[in-house]
Amino acid sequence: MFKSLKIKPGRLLQTIHDTAESFGAMYKWGEHHTETGLRRLALGDEDKGMRDWFAKEVVSLGCELKIDELGNMFAIYPGQDMSAIPTGVGSHLDSQPTGGRYDGPLGVLAGLEILRTIKENGYVPNYPIALINWTNEEGARFPAPLLGSSVWSGSTKKEDIYKVKSVTDAPPRTVLGELERIGYKGEVECSHKTNPIACHFEIHIEQAPFLEMAGKKIGVVQGIQSFNWQEIIVRGEAKHTETSPMEGRADALLAAARMVIKGNEIGIKYGGLCSTGYLDVEPHVFNVIPNEVKFSLDTHHYEEDKLRSMLAEIRETFDAIAAKGDGTSKAIPLSVEYIPVFESPPTHFHPECIETVRNAAIEVVGEDMIMDITARAGHDSKETSSIVPTSMVFIPCKDGVSHAPTEYSTPQQVEDGFKVLMNAVLGYDLLRKEKA
Amino acid sequence: MFKSLKIKPGRLLQTIHDTAESFGAMYKWGEHHTETGLRRLALGDEDKGMRDWFAKEVVSLGCELKIDELGNMFAIYPGQDMSAIPTGVGSHLDSQPTGGRYDGPLGVLAGLEILRTIKENGYVPNYPIALINWTNEEGARFPAPLLGSSVWSGSTKKEDIYKVKSVTDAPPRTVLGELERIGYKGEVECSHKTNPIACHFEIHIEQAPFLEMAGKKIGVVQGIQSFNWQEIIVRGEAKHTETSPMEGRADALLAAARMVIKGNEIGIKYGGLCSTGYLDVEPHVFNVIPNEVKFSLDTHHYEEDKLRSMLAEIRETFDAIAAKGDGTSKAIPLSVEYIPVFESPPTHFHPECIETVRNAAIEVVGEDMIMDITARAGHDSKETSSIVPTSMVFIPCKDGVSHAPTEYSTPQQVEDGFKVLMNAVLGYDLLRKEKA
Repeated sequence: MFKSLKIKPGRLLQTIHDTAESFGAMYKWGEHHTETGLRRLALGDEDKGMRDWFAKEVVSLGCELKIDELGNMFAIYPGQDMSAIPTGVGSHLDSQPTGGRYDGPLGVLAGLEILRTIKENGYVPNYPIALINWTNEEGARFPAPLLGSSVWSGSTKKEDIYKVKSVTDAPPRTVLGELERIGYKGEVECSHKTNPIACHFEIHIEQAPFLEMAGKKIGVVQGIQSFNWQEIIVRGEAKHTETSPMEGRADALLAAARMVIKGNEIGIKYGGLCSTGYLDVEPHVFNVIPNEVKFSLDTHHYEEDKLRSMLAEIRETFDAIAAKGDGTSKAIPLSVEYIPVFESPPTHFHPECIETVRNAAIEVVGEDMIMDITARAGHDSKETSSIVPTSMVFIPCKDGVSHAPTEYSTPQQVEDGFKVLMNAVLGYDLLRKEKA
Repeated sequence: MFKSLKIKPGRLLQTIHDTAESFGAMYKWGEHHTETGLRRLALGDEDKGMRDWFAKEVVSLGCELKIDELGNMFAIYPGQDMSAIPTGVGSHLDSQPTGGRYDGPLGVLAGLEILRTIKENGYVPNYPIALINWTNEEGARFPAPLLGSSVWSGSTKKEDIYKVKSVTDAPPRTVLGELERIGYKGEVECSHKTNPIACHFEIHIEQAPFLEMAGKKIGVVQGIQSFNWQEIIVRGEAKHTETSPMEGRADALLAAARMVIKGNEIGIKYGGLCSTGYLDVEPHVFNVIPNEVKFSLDTHHYEEDKLRSMLAEIRETFDAIAAKGDGTSKAIPLSVEYIPVFESPPTHFHPECIETVRNAAIEVVGEDMIMDITARAGHDSKETSSIVPTSMVFIPCKDGVSHAPTEYSTPQQVEDGFKVLMNAVLGYDLLRKEKA
């Protein structure tokens, strides 16, 4: 029985640190050599290095490695019934440009640690296990988050995704070009239909402070809140900063600044989130009043109807700011355009998978130490959830910090999370057998 | 006597339009083919084309062409006393990235029209005339405004200026590299000591609506107001936009947005100018709260002491915004850094040159149609003024618009301005002789 499997304490964390240091460690923030962040942009050289390492590792464990057309890597570990659809466990190995060591890699490497553990213990699951590295989950280098898993699930199209251009290279590079360059455009069709999994489990740091604040050890993830990404373009009039009187300007940056502040206030008012991550100014010259400003608006709410209300109020408010111009007596109205980028309805994970995670968590840390959580950010599990039963395991991270070099979970938190994930994956394997 | 010289009406404007259309016309805004803006970035291909045309033109008029190490072009038109230091007239042929046809080219081409006119009329001035095209006046491609004239005057150093990197190329290019690439790194030393002029006259569009509002035709420029350029860096903390509660963030963009708005308000309050032309966000990702924002702050005032007060209040206000963080109950203070970029004390033009311009203007448009003006923006005349007697002629431009494609002066305004400039240059030539 899997609950008696002997684990190697500390090995998973060692693997996280070793691979971080070999492939993308950057942004030293502490004295210890493990105290740095990570820059491992999807399909970049560091990502290729990490992928090569991962491929070698899973093959040495006896996995069959399938690489699909989007670079998603499926390592199939043998089960007793080799004809069955595998049990899925995965996450992503890419990071944010100034990211941390845990967001993504923890999920894939915890899956790897499961395979190492069952191999060492001579435990053979009923069904094969697919350990998956999904491509470009972050959407940081290529602004299409959940890139690999969304093509696999069918929510985006391969042809569109191949053309997406990187925002971190000059000149930009395409997804297709970079897949080919690093040798990870595989032969396997990227589709849940021809390359199926039976379910998907994923462990991730919480990226929020709620577990830590509540003093809990494991989050049992119920689903993902709804969110909306849009790009706002404000258009005014370029004039000389040094000669144009302050009245009668149509300063696009001034209007955009007001919108960024107001968006934030509306997020707070509704108990949701509203944030701007980038803002670009044209013509970007010291002494020219900006005539065009483009900025991102990332809006979240646990409740779908509250998200709708927030978005309506944001639009009304931004329209009013633009119409008012600079607000002086000679105000010139500005124009504002709203470009949809990405929208996600709420995701509800599968009751059986949630229950499997809950039972595993109770076993490892006890009932008092677990908490039901609705995830705020997108994860590959959002995409798999639209196709197969899915749930996630969250562990606390220090101060809720993520997408930053100082992202940190303690060795104990990492080990607790790994145990819960392993018990969930192997527990679900048993459940599948029982129901078969 | 030069006041009886026959001019060719319309030829100067035709030259402005022809050269705009050959070298950088862009951004069509009206029906007529002359109704476009101009993109002629300093030391770029369009600038090289314009320089080559200008070189050919001045040589065909009988000028000796001297090109200095910074690409400044001195076309020396012969006078009766060829051993004398030439009378200077000049401006710049480069433009803003989304600039207009008049800012800069009007000044150089009006000088060219003087040379054409005196040659056609067989008029020989007492002293040689140096018609000058100063390199990168705009500071748009290379963020060092008055680049060529400032090295000539000695207020900046050649070695430093050569290293300045372009902000409009990826990857950036240096001044030295581009001078060499387009073949305009000349042999002549860039120095007022070894390549002197006796004075400097410059015609320019006003770039402000004051002449137009007052119904005047010519501005007699008394000097240039004092200004200060600085770069502000706000540092907060990067976190995930989708998982970090709105309270307890240290959003650098939110603080910077408040500063941009407050800076503007302080500008209005003091009757000065305070503007932000660019703003850059790090790490510039959709779902990461910006941890660093850098923005420009361009602050002007006619009165030096008011400028000092404005700058002090701006600093106090920005410090307070940063200290307050996001203003919520869990506010985390941000840091703010002030980086000096460029500062200019007020420039007072030379009484004799101002008087020469005034007399010429009275002659051409009558005493009621002229207005004393203090320029707001930097001009190459600011640099020459620190070395030799200098003044400028301003003509009105529609709605005060400049640094934008719709920049426009009427044919009559261009012709009036040219006549005033010619009379001033040739009048000063007489004055020099009288005083000799």
